[in-house]
Amino acid sequence: MSKCFNIAVLGATGAVGRQMIECLEEYKIPVGKLSLLASARSAGQTLTFNGKPVVVEEATEKSFEGMNFVLGAVSNAMSKAFAPAIVKAGAVFIDNSSAFRQDPDCPLVVPEINGEDAFKNKGIISNPNCSTIITLMAVAAINKVSPIKNMIASTYQAVSGAGQGGLVELETELDDIHNGKKPQPKVFPHQIAMNVIPFIGSMSEADYTTEEMKMQNEGRKILHLPNLTVSCTCVRVPVMRSHSISVVLRTERKVSVEEARKAISVFPGCRLADDMDGRNYPTPLDTSNQDIVYVGRIREDLTDPNGLNLWCCGDQIRKGAAANAVQILKLMIEK
Amino acid sequence: MSKCFNIAVLGATGAVGRQMIECLEEYKIPVGKLSLLASARSAGQTLTFNGKPVVVEEATEKSFEGMNFVLGAVSNAMSKAFAPAIVKAGAVFIDNSSAFRQDPDCPLVVPEINGEDAFKNKGIISNPNCSTIITLMAVAAINKVSPIKNMIASTYQAVSGAGQGGLVELETELDDIHNGKKPQPKVFPHQIAMNVIPFIGSMSEADYTTEEMKMQNEGRKILHLPNLTVSCTCVRVPVMRSHSISVVLRTERKVSVEEARKAISVFPGCRLADDMDGRNYPTPLDTSNQDIVYVGRIREDLTDPNGLNLWCCGDQIRKGAAANAVQILKLMIEK
Repeated sequence: MSKCFNIAVLGATGAVGRQMIECLEEYKIPVGKLSLLASARSAGQTLTFNGKPVVVEEATEKSFEGMNFVLGAVSNAMSKAFAPAIVKAGAVFIDNSSAFRQDPDCPLVVPEINGEDAFKNKGIISNPNCSTIITLMAVAAINKVSPIKNMIASTYQAVSGAGQGGLVELETELDDIHNGKKPQPKVFPHQIAMNVIPFIGSMSEADYTTEEMKMQNEGRKILHLPNLTVSCTCVRVPVMRSHSISVVLRTERKVSVEEARKAISVFPGCRLADDMDGRNYPTPLDTSNQDIVYVGRIREDLTDPNGLNLWCCGDQIRKGAAANAVQILKLMIEK
Repeated sequence: MSKCFNIAVLGATGAVGRQMIECLEEYKIPVGKLSLLASARSAGQTLTFNGKPVVVEEATEKSFEGMNFVLGAVSNAMSKAFAPAIVKAGAVFIDNSSAFRQDPDCPLVVPEINGEDAFKNKGIISNPNCSTIITLMAVAAINKVSPIKNMIASTYQAVSGAGQGGLVELETELDDIHNGKKPQPKVFPHQIAMNVIPFIGSMSEADYTTEEMKMQNEGRKILHLPNLTVSCTCVRVPVMRSHSISVVLRTERKVSVEEARKAISVFPGCRLADDMDGRNYPTPLDTSNQDIVYVGRIREDLTDPNGLNLWCCGDQIRKGAAANAVQILKLMIEK
């Protein structure tokens, strides 16, 4: 007889929350009670779990009593507001917001990379930034061959990173263009259809955005590389679900292209797609709606003998958010 | 009384050829006879120059007699085939193909950067690769402050880089998606609508594509930096006309962000758009249909004290091809 776990999804009606519910099914998590929680505005909606209807309830401080795990897919402010009640109820909060990611008491976890960190939690485990998860999945295998000293990353980020509203905005703008109407951006600062926007997040230090600094700050914590430096440029592209990242990384000793390919091909959760003659390289469309990070275009960096270039793609809503959170949960219950 | 020049446009019916004709008008080039030349298939079409119809003729070896300049917008093979007849006719061939770009007898020219090289021609002047022109326009001012040692570049290239067929393919695919039909890529190796493709050109050395190697090889010649190294990743994005490039460059001595901004803001053909609080940064949509290269997102490279990050956008058909060629022509006739 296997044990069941009471699980709440906080922010169940958003793009990431809905995907978390699907991932709980797909990963065959033994769920006892499932509570789907959202703001008062979304309460009363009916979602489906394992074929059965579940009514969404308004999240309150009392919602977490009796829960073993809470999967969070809400804003930083909401995560901070509910975290004390979740911890007090004795549940483990696996939080997709960035509220606790730099808190030394809160592990920041990608299960394939630093799963062991999850067990040092004091009630809160943070799910990393989406681009950071996908990039680190691609480079973690190389980091095992020789530690990474620094990275240059340019992202090609899907609209799903802005949630359901981002997905709707791209589709609405494409409809508008088709109908000869001028798109009216609401979610993004500029038209995203047939455009790209080099601004994600808000302004942070030294002219970088908050989104750009996450790659360095979260990368240091996840890879256990406190001196890692990362120059990141985050760019929104008119793609629905999968993020792509062009990465140059420099390792302590030279890692050959063949060593890198071999390491990536055996790394759990990663797949090598690096055969240009066979037109096999990752694209966001080909890597959507699944949990593997695809890596290709591995080349020597022509500017540094210890450098490698690569290109990776992974589904933002899944491995970049919901699936990674459910994988953390699975790791916790299987231990 | 000002002198007039007889000018032929070879490949007049393509996206770049048509733009060359418009640029001849806009730059008020004193044109005597204008010959619009194309393949037998396109001959007979009527185009317009300065409000008057001009019938497209089939290009033959005799088409260039009496011409002062020939603007070329055809394939490498066609450029090579016609170059001897053009030179024999005594015309200067300003060629947009890559056929002669690495020929030591053929200058490779961006007028604002190395205009003086144009006068060393022996009958052929090459127009550089589109991404290379736009990237170098953004960094040339910084190169004057301190020489560039190396660059990392990730491109976001518009579909116009594949000519008229690329423009039509993106629009057709978006229509197909709107109508619930599965897009059938012909020009690009994968669906480009709502996708990005990390493969442009054909395979070259060390797993780089021909398109990627142009940034280094043409950059060396244009900037007069024979030891420049460039690691480039070229990516097609679903944007119509303007290329964007995320660049990290390392200079011999440290150039501050403020020095770089100041140098770029006074460089001819460049405009600084670098005010994040004012939402002023370059996007491909905002920089289409004009000849200036816009530069923003200038930041210190967090991985190298002598490094700078920047983001630039410029119209591929104009400054990346047709306008640059007409600017070379203008330079030649004004000297």
